[in-house]
Amino acid sequence: MSVVTLLTDFGDEDAYVAEMKGVILGIVEDVRIVDISHKVTPYSIDEGAFLLLTAVPYFPKGTVHVAVVDPGVGTSRRGIVVETEVCTFVGPDNGLLIPAAKRCGVFRVFEITSTGYMLPSKTHTFHGRDVFAPVAAYIAKGVDVEEIGRRIEDYVDFDFNFVVKNEKIISKVLHVDRFGNVVIGVNDDFVVKRFRYGEKIRFLVKGREYVAPFLKSYGFVEKNELLLTVGGTGFLEVSVNQGSAAEKLDVEVGEVFTLFL
Amino acid sequence: MSVVTLLTDFGDEDAYVAEMKGVILGIVEDVRIVDISHKVTPYSIDEGAFLLLTAVPYFPKGTVHVAVVDPGVGTSRRGIVVETEVCTFVGPDNGLLIPAAKRCGVFRVFEITSTGYMLPSKTHTFHGRDVFAPVAAYIAKGVDVEEIGRRIEDYVDFDFNFVVKNEKIISKVLHVDRFGNVVIGVNDDFVVKRFRYGEKIRFLVKGREYVAPFLKSYGFVEKNELLLTVGGTGFLEVSVNQGSAAEKLDVEVGEVFTLFL
Amino acid sequence: MSVVTLLTDFGDEDAYVAEMKGVILGIVEDVRIVDISHKVTPYSIDEGAFLLLTAVPYFPKGTVHVAVVDPGVGTSRRGIVVETEVCTFVGPDNGLLIPAAKRCGVFRVFEITSTGYMLPSKTHTFHGRDVFAPVAAYIAKGVDVEEIGRRIEDYVDFDFNFVVKNEKIISKVLHVDRFGNVVIGVNDDFVVKRFRYGEKIRFLVKGREYVAPFLKSYGFVEKNELLLTVGGTGFLEVSVNQGSAAEKLDVEVGEVFTLFL
Repeated sequence: MSVVTLLTDFGDEDAYVAEMKGVILGIVEDVRIVDISHKVTPYSIDEGAFLLLTAVPYFPKGTVHVAVVDPGVGTSRRGIVVETEVCTFVGPDNGLLIPAAKRCGVFRVFEITSTGYMLPSKTHTFHGRDVFAPVAAYIAKGVDVEEIGRRIEDYVDFDFNFVVKNEKIISKVLHVDRFGNVVIGVNDDFVVKRFRYGEKIRFLVKGREYVAPFLKSYGFVEKNELLLTVGGTGFLEVSVNQGSAAEKLDVEVGEVFTLFL
Repeated sequence: MSVVTLLTDFGDEDAYVAEMKGVILGIVEDVRIVDISHKVTPYSIDEGAFLLLTAVPYFPKGTVHVAVVDPGVGTSRRGIVVETEVCTFVGPDNGLLIPAAKRCGVFRVFEITSTGYMLPSKTHTFHGRDVFAPVAAYIAKGVDVEEIGRRIEDYVDFDFNFVVKNEKIISKVLHVDRFGNVVIGVNDDFVVKRFRYGEKIRFLVKGREYVAPFLKSYGFVEKNELLLTVGGTGFLEVSVNQGSAAEKLDVEVGEVFTLFL
Repeated sequence: MSVVTLLTDFGDEDAYVAEMKGVILGIVEDVRIVDISHKVTPYSIDEGAFLLLTAVPYFPKGTVHVAVVDPGVGTSRRGIVVETEVCTFVGPDNGLLIPAAKRCGVFRVFEITSTGYMLPSKTHTFHGRDVFAPVAAYIAKGVDVEEIGRRIEDYVDFDFNFVVKNEKIISKVLHVDRFGNVVIGVNDDFVVKRFRYGEKIRFLVKGREYVAPFLKSYGFVEKNELLLTVGGTGFLEVSVNQGSAAEKLDVEVGEVFTLFL
């Protein structure tokens, strides 16, 4: 039994995701297909890369992750497979797959070149269904990556970075989740080293300053109060207990975010 | 083969639900995972309990139902497993699981105590992934509930009640579905005993009175006309043929609803 | 292993779709259930038929497709099974299944008559769960269609048509997808015969005229520019590179659309 995951910006009104699943099930029977999310902001490679990065550690060894946020589809951008020791990624060569691959350790990148593993009716607008889904299915079935493409080194690289200088951490809003939790591009390793639970932290966003406690969970402040925590994503979050931090701070994905040390 | 269902208020923009599925598939291979709904109004234990209650009878014997609407996560609220003769429930001890468990007959409640069935990296904010998903997967795999926790009697109890007095039935709006059908907390057994098909029923909501016929289905009134029926949920519904009763009555979940006998 | 797909206008807030899945899994174990879409505009048989038509070719031989867009549920409209050489359809007799069935070649229509393949607790309002889901599960399990119903010829027929006259193609907007791509009811066979890539095409919608190039993919025009292409659906689309054509043209499903030859 193998697992294939799907992450796209296709939404769920259309039949696009279902077509990818149909293609996969036509190639490999003994597979579990799991949706990571299809609600990535259209064309937002950053948000797609973030969601993929956070989800990947929870999947079993050998999972094949297909991710499609692909503004360059139909042009000369390449399709790639990224092979790591624990899982495999399939998608466009635009940075989307790289942060998740790095989290898995050593990785190798292959350009998809062999048309034998694509749909014969390949279109110019929908490589998710015509290229990435069948390639993932063949990998899940046991086909060797070296059969499907050729090793490349000049793939499009991508990282979530934060900068520490002058007693400040400068980062960005990576994601706003359903509850209005505002995810900041600072990971838990760094956070836990720098801050203690209960400590009050000062931060700046959209020209306004705030102070909030760093806590283990939402329930440790009163309803509607602001806090910082390490959320389920493994990144620092600004949250409001039973409320929306995104509304309270009036921020969206991409906003610059400064923490004072 | 076993079935695990998931009901949460996590929405579908984030990777949270996928992470739960990844965890489950890493523990038990031969499983079908079914989403009941992830669109429960955030923190609404009532609505979550209602949706779980209505869905459960349609799943095969042995299904494990994970439900997470959990405003108290990370505080001292307990995690529980509820075992019935036909299925098992896993989730927070806040009432969410209890109406569905009662519908299944005799049940026993266990507090989840053994950390051996949780993720080693258990966070303080996401017990859905770190506690409830793995516990459900181990149960689906055949681990005995008594291995996972200890029997308790002081769980948080919860019921959907309606009151009959002075020729009135006083109840509440439990749910508004996609079609604008307004579900009232009066179950079909009671409705079928009290009302005949074709009978006109008078009711009061938000200070306004209405009269509508009790019918077998929507199609028996003209387009845009009001009716009462026993919907797919097994509860009384106020509906509008090919229209929205919620808009027509201007009501939301929680509104008091009075029927005249 | 068999595949069952589900297409409905039930949305994803409620437990309705999950109940259908529970029923199916209670009847047939070795099945993969795939959601095509549950976001069909409520009661829009046209849009449901279009989405089913586009998705079906991508599923493996033997797939059973359940589709429920069913304003007449509970009245005398019949339930049908449509058998083709590559797959089977189950749903209401209101035209919904027919365009997809025609795409699969020769087909035979059966009225569902045998109550032995329905839920014993069949309601008047939810045949998706009580009739179509169990019938589909029994077919997936190998039950012969002739056991379930009787052959009929007077089913409700339905087609997506376009008209060519006086150097014009007159058609309709069938669907607007998540990206704002506007799908026109003119199929790729016709388009590829009549237009060359790079050719500029003049069209009229809502009283306004536009000219846009017919291209292989979105990326061949500048950001925010209009183009025509054959999208992933196999139909002609009006698109805007990294933007919404539906907003630019201010159109919705059902709008008349004229192309000049």
